[in-house]
Amino acid sequence: MERGIYITDRDGESYGNFFRSERILYQGRSRYQDILVFDTREAGRVMMLDNIFNVSESMEAFYHEPMAHIPLAMGEGDQEVLIIGGGDFALARQVLKHSFVTGLTLCELDPEILTICRRWFPEWAACESDERLRVRVGDGFDYLDECPEASLDALLIDSTDPYLFESPLISEAFYAKSARALKPGGVMMQIIADFLFYKKTWFEVIPLVAPYFSVLKPLAIPIPFYATGSWGFLLAGKGRTDLDPERVSADYLRSIPGLKTLTPDGVKGWFSLPPYLREEFGDLPGL
Amino acid sequence: MERGIYITDRDGESYGNFFRSERILYQGRSRYQDILVFDTREAGRVMMLDNIFNVSESMEAFYHEPMAHIPLAMGEGDQEVLIIGGGDFALARQVLKHSFVTGLTLCELDPEILTICRRWFPEWAACESDERLRVRVGDGFDYLDECPEASLDALLIDSTDPYLFESPLISEAFYAKSARALKPGGVMMQIIADFLFYKKTWFEVIPLVAPYFSVLKPLAIPIPFYATGSWGFLLAGKGRTDLDPERVSADYLRSIPGLKTLTPDGVKGWFSLPPYLREEFGDLPGL
Repeated sequence: MERGIYITDRDGESYGNFFRSERILYQGRSRYQDILVFDTREAGRVMMLDNIFNVSESMEAFYHEPMAHIPLAMGEGDQEVLIIGGGDFALARQVLKHSFVTGLTLCELDPEILTICRRWFPEWAACESDERLRVRVGDGFDYLDECPEASLDALLIDSTDPYLFESPLISEAFYAKSARALKPGGVMMQIIADFLFYKKTWFEVIPLVAPYFSVLKPLAIPIPFYATGSWGFLLAGKGRTDLDPERVSADYLRSIPGLKTLTPDGVKGWFSLPPYLREEFGDLPGL
Repeated sequence: MERGIYITDRDGESYGNFFRSERILYQGRSRYQDILVFDTREAGRVMMLDNIFNVSESMEAFYHEPMAHIPLAMGEGDQEVLIIGGGDFALARQVLKHSFVTGLTLCELDPEILTICRRWFPEWAACESDERLRVRVGDGFDYLDECPEASLDALLIDSTDPYLFESPLISEAFYAKSARALKPGGVMMQIIADFLFYKKTWFEVIPLVAPYFSVLKPLAIPIPFYATGSWGFLLAGKGRTDLDPERVSADYLRSIPGLKTLTPDGVKGWFSLPPYLREEFGDLPGL
């Protein structure tokens, strides 16, 4: 370590990670949350929300590529996509790389996130010029009621780490609304919690989701920006029998410009639960 | 975070991880290094060497299972194995799970590591009762000269993170000796450095290894105990044309008692270089 400002996001855990800030660029409080933007050497520019590491410029692809390209690979033909959260535009940018995406709604609760990210992460916000993108300010939980029934091919939930809060985006009501808005065969992707030290969160979430989705796949994906470096995502399918990683094929991945982290074998590996989890997760629908 | 003793192993990097010590069990200096043993909540008992995180009780399988079972899967029939380092016995314990291992030499430089690990990690040291294991105290670099030529099926290098030091275990002389001691078709496995922030270490190591091995495979393996949670290992084969992850089959893995982290698809994924590395590593022999 060196002299300087070290920033961590731990709250009660006995382990964690930290980054040294080279320069604090913005610190403020919106109606909804504390927002902090700072530059680091290895992680590039970083944003924290309520003192939780949210996004890193140099490592964003590890999170946003799987979050976008795995669920979208599960669909057929033209796709209509909804992002809940994602006000940094980094996920939208990935989704819009696909010509089969005909429409994308980004529903961000906090308008200040949009303003701050346009200023400090302009490379991501540049995708706003894409006319397929509609940005809405509002609560995703409520917005789902406005979505016509069976109108979405993919729903990507890119909110602050849900396991840390009593989040309305982890509730039976939310999953019921999500399933209603999805077409038959549609898919949902959401970050849940790491499998190592927050396994219990998974067993709280699964009973809430399972009534509304026919296939659930827990994926362990390397996220170097977050403590432990491996994070658990839930991919859920409505009214379908499979979510097959083979669909993330070499051809599909070749069609994505500037891809950094995904390979067919790598993705297949993330679908494969290790023995220390397999027994406990063995009863999930579709596993 | 809470009140207490927080321990990190960073030295100049602007990012890192930390653990809270519930209790310091041992702190001392051997002829070779500083040794610290402490208990944590999530990582279990931890050992640091020269203030670098070395081993965690709760997360050891993530490191020792791939380190043992991937290289051993590449062999045929009875195998003679050498571990350089590994004085905590956790890797030896994994190697000895295979009945095809007929002999295992563990060559540890520092006798105090053996004493301390027998006391504080007795579950791992219990494998000392296995009569196939020979423990030697001495420098692995020198010990390789005593090994008869072409006598080893697998060489596992389990030393302190080599990328942090001017290590004699990362040198052309060392790799020449290693290749000499291996049988034709034999394999070597060594932790090198993470691909994200220590990529340059890889390009220093590869020219040293490449003259002596016919196939090199860089593997990115999730290691939640280390900063960024993903670490780079080198698997190298002598006088063979392939190192095929398909050999880490479901049948092979089923034969390993108490296996926690490995699956056939997961291992195959670790062999698959992501696009952000593929171009740069594309010229490795055997890739």
